Order: sequence, then C-alpha cells, then structure tokens
Amino acid sequence: MNAQRLHGALAPVVTPYTADLAPDAGRLVAHCRWLVANDTGLAVFGTTSEGNSLSVPEKIALLDALFDAGLPASRMMPGTGCCALTDTVALTRHAVQHGCGGVLMLPPFYYKGVSDDGLFASYSEVIERVGDARLRVYLYHIPQVSQVPISFALIERLLDRYPGTVAGIKDSGGNFDNMRGMMERFAARGFDVFSGSELFLLATLRGGGAGTISAICNVSPATIARLAREWRNADADAQQKAIDRVRGVLSAYPMVPALKVIVAQFTGDDAWARVRPPLVALAAEQSREIGEKLRAIEFAMPGLAHTGTAPIAA
Amino acid sequence: MNAQRLHGALAPVVTPYTADLAPDAGRLVAHCRWLVANDTGLAVFGTTSEGNSLSVPEKIALLDALFDAGLPASRMMPGTGCCALTDTVALTRHAVQHGCGGVLMLPPFYYKGVSDDGLFASYSEVIERVGDARLRVYLYHIPQVSQVPISFALIERLLDRYPGTVAGIKDSGGNFDNMRGMMERFAARGFDVFSGSELFLLATLRGGGAGTISAICNVSPATIARLAREWRNADADAQQKAIDRVRGVLSAYPMVPALKVIVAQFTGDDAWARVRPPLVALAAEQSREIGEKLRAIEFAMPGLAHTGTAPIAA
Repeated sequence: MNAQRLHGALAPVVTPYTADLAPDAGRLVAHCRWLVANDTGLAVFGTTSEGNSLSVPEKIALLDALFDAGLPASRMMPGTGCCALTDTVALTRHAVQHGCGGVLMLPPFYYKGVSDDGLFASYSEVIERVGDARLRVYLYHIPQVSQVPISFALIERLLDRYPGTVAGIKDSGGNFDNMRGMMERFAARGFDVFSGSELFLLATLRGGGAGTISAICNVSPATIARLAREWRNADADAQQKAIDRVRGVLSAYPMVPALKVIVAQFTGDDAWARVRPPLVALAAEQSREIGEKLRAIEFAMPGLAHTGTAPIAA
Repeated sequence: MNAQRLHGALAPVVTPYTADLAPDAGRLVAHCRWLVANDTGLAVFGTTSEGNSLSVPEKIALLDALFDAGLPASRMMPGTGCCALTDTVALTRHAVQHGCGGVLMLPPFYYKGVSDDGLFASYSEVIERVGDARLRVYLYHIPQVSQVPISFALIERLLDRYPGTVAGIKDSGGNFDNMRGMMERFAARGFDVFSGSELFLLATLRGGGAGTISAICNVSPATIARLAREWRNADADAQQKAIDRVRGVLSAYPMVPALKVIVAQFTGDDAWARVRPPLVALAAEQSREIGEKLRAIEFAMPGLAHTGTAPIAA
C-alpha cells in the first residue's frame, strides 16, 4: 500500500450545531484535532456526520474551516456524493483543489433501481468534469441507507476506465463476504477496501484491505487506529475484542445521537448533543443509561479537552 | 375548494438539458407555456422532473426563468423538499416570495426508518423558518422512491399545528385505499389530496380529492385537465378510459426518458431526449417502438410547437 494513500482508521466525523442548528465550525475543528492527534483520518460528511443534512455551501464552509485550522488535507476523505451531478462536482472539485487525500462518493441516491450504466455515467461525469489527476474516489456502498448498491460489475468498469482515480470503497453493507470478494477481486489493482464497521477491522486488514471508516472512530480513535497499525501483533484479536465492547453498548441506540451524547458527556459540552432533523436527539434517560454502561466497561476518551460547563461523565 | 387553491391537473414538468447537461431554461419555458395553455399547472422539480438531480442554484435559476417569462406563479407547485434543511428552506422561501401557489415537499430522504417526531421536526423547522402566511405545503408521499413514507399520524400532527399552511399531499404510492383514507379523514380540514397517477384521477375527484400531479400530464395535459373540469359529466368514465391508454403504452418503459422521447418526437427536437445520470436515455429502438405504439392509439399533442429539425413523429 502506497504510504501516501489513505489507510487505517478514519472517522465519519460527527457534525456539531449551534443553537439554531447551523454547523458549528469551531467545535468541529476541535474534534478533528483530537481525532488526528489520535492517528485517525477525517471522513467528514459521511452518514454519521449527517453529511446529507448539510447544504453544499455549508459543507464547503466547514471544509475551509478545517483547512484554515491547519488540519491535514492529506488525511481527509470528505463525503461528496450528492443526488445532483453538479453538487457532487462542486464539492469534489473543492476537496481535490485543497489536497484532500480522497473523497467518499455516494452514488446519486434519489432514484432507486437505477442501472449500472446510469451509475457508471454518474461517476464518469464527475471524474471527467473534475479532471484532476490528484482525485482519489472511494465509492460508498451502504445499500441499507442509500438503497443504491455498488455492484462488482460497476467497480470493474470503473477500474478499467479510471485506474488510479477509482481508489477504493467503503463497504457499510455489513456483509463481510462482500468485502472479502472485493479484496480478492480488486485489491491487486490498487483498490482499497475500508470496512464500514470497526467490527470487521482485523478481518479486513488480514484480507488485504486498507482499514475502517467507522462511526465508533469518533469516540474510540486511539484504540482503533492502534489495531490498524498493530494488526500483525500477537494481541491483535484481543485488541479487536476490546474495541468491540463499545459498539456492544451503542447498538441499543440510534448511532448518531448516541455518539453525540458521548462527545457531549466527555467534553462536558451539551451543545454536542444536537442533531438536525430528521434525526432526533436522545431522551435524557437514554443519555444517562449510555453514560452508565460506558462507565461499566471503563470507557474513556483520553486527551479530549473538557470545554463545557457540565461535569465530565466518566 | 377555494378557487385560489391549486387543483385539477398538474405536470411534474420534464426538465430539458443542453448538450453539456445544463438545465435548458428556454426549452423549459416553452414546454410550460404549452402546459398552462392546456389548463395544466406546473409541478416543476418533481420526480419526473429529475428535480433531485438539479442543484439548488440550478432550480432557483429555472424558477426565475419561469417567473421572468410571465408564467403564472399561482399555478406553480415546485418541488422543494431536499435532504438538507437549509436547502429546503432556501428553495421554499424563493418559491413563496414569488407567489407560487404551493410547494411539493419531500421529507428529507437520505436517512431511512426515521421517526414521525423527526419528520414533524423537519417540516416544522421549514415552515417556521420560511415564516410566511402565503406558504402552502403539499406533502409528497412516494415511498417506493423516497423510502420515507408520510403516515396519517404525521399528517394529523402537522394539520393540528399548521392548519391552512399544510395544504395537502401528492400520493404516488399507487394504493388508492391510502388516498381514500386521507380524503375521508382530512379533506374536511382543507387538506387536498392529489393522486400521483392520472389513473386515479376520476376516483380521486369522486372521493373529494383535488386532482392529479402526474407524469403523463407532460404529454396529455388537455385531456387530463378536461376530465378534472368535467368529472361530473356523464362521459367521465369514458374520458378516464381514453386517458389510461397513454400509460398503457408507457408502462413498458422507464417513465422519464420515455416522456422525453415523446416530447422530442412531437417537437422534432432531439435535445429533449437527454437525461441526467443516473437516468439513462432510451435506445433508438425503444424510441421508435414508442412512436409506433402512440400512432396506433392516435395519440397527439395538439398545439405543441414544432421547434426542431426532425420530422414530427405522429
């Protein structure tokens, strides 16, 4: 794997909001600094980021805030795939021009049952219009949400036409057989598979994949990034098992608001708990429960700045 | 029904593109003029319009072109529901400030399995932020595409909180029982049900609904609008039956490219056949087939200007 390429742990960074539900660049920068300090890349504007709940101008402004703050663009993989071709092009172009290591590109997801010809044309138009040799496109397979799966046949066509540019995939489908199949078939062509859940991190790396882009990286970046570095070590299975306990707690709750509650508790900053509709913040009782369950597994977020007025939860 | 309110036939107007797939305002204006001349309202930016394949700035520019051309805003119901709250607010505000008779509002459609609380918050935030007494929101129920259905319980809550503003629904689910249920339960509260298919036009009007917003209105506006005016006449069932023959032909093809091929054939203007990815234009053989089948049922588009260089198909 090229050292320049994105790999290891990336967080689909949760997006903080001000009281009027505007994106909060200051809090986002702070969280991104902590993630990068913990060797975790920045897959901003993913599903966990409520990326599609943000407008294109909002996303461009947030990206600019990250660049201006000196965060490393080489470790960024912003989500840029929108329903409208022109939106996807605008966002992708902005990311590439500022040196982002890659972009995570959903297929256009409004129409369902679209053909591989239509999806190939969608990706092709974006790649041609951006027209930049630095572009690295990571396809985004998350059929349970997008309802528009990425088939092996489509990957094959894209790799044939855009080798080097079509750089990999995030597979959030939850079926490791699909990930294994892609690694066996496409890894040798420089196609990097990222598992969409940290539960598959070790299996993905052992199978020749590149890492994980997982919601849980927002709260456990160091332990996940460590396994991504040390997966050949003798204690790798034990590390994976320790990581898995966090999702064990969170799987009982809606993921995005639950993660935000954890960041709110460990920063002492209640503002972090806000979500944009159609998502709904957790009830106070659920937040309390999560805090208790995390204490029971001795969960911590070392190095996270306590920026709020509330007491630290753990 | 208030005479000021949108009713009868509305077309989710197909969107023409230039050779580089930019929206073509000139051709759109021409088609809208013909639709209005045939007593058909303008539900631009619907599913049939590839509305979600256009960016917000593209949609605002197209709306402005329609206003500037003197087309009646009172007969417009642009689709304004996007995934991002701020996009929906911007588009809705623009439509209302220019006097649009209503807006057709998809729920945010990226996340699936969202709660009625989240959808209520979504619609509520938009209505509060636009904050204009002229706003008329038509909900958009098209679960087979959006995968985010509009429940009766949600309608009830919205009508309780925003009577007058929440003005109706387009039901494209294809299940007349659902439409009948909404008419029985909500019509008396000024909630206007539009069927998403012209196949249900007569049944909808007999059940107390307001009309239809249907793809086929793009090519058969006059006959559909006539039935919407004359549904109490003795020949109403015969009119419905005659209308149904067009969908009988088109149902064998992907709807959007098929409609565009028909407009291309009857204007003699091949540019109309273009679609944006992820949709795919019809093959020449399919276009020819459609032309033949339409001739067999003596289909015509009277009054449509022949603007192209190709011969008129019919």
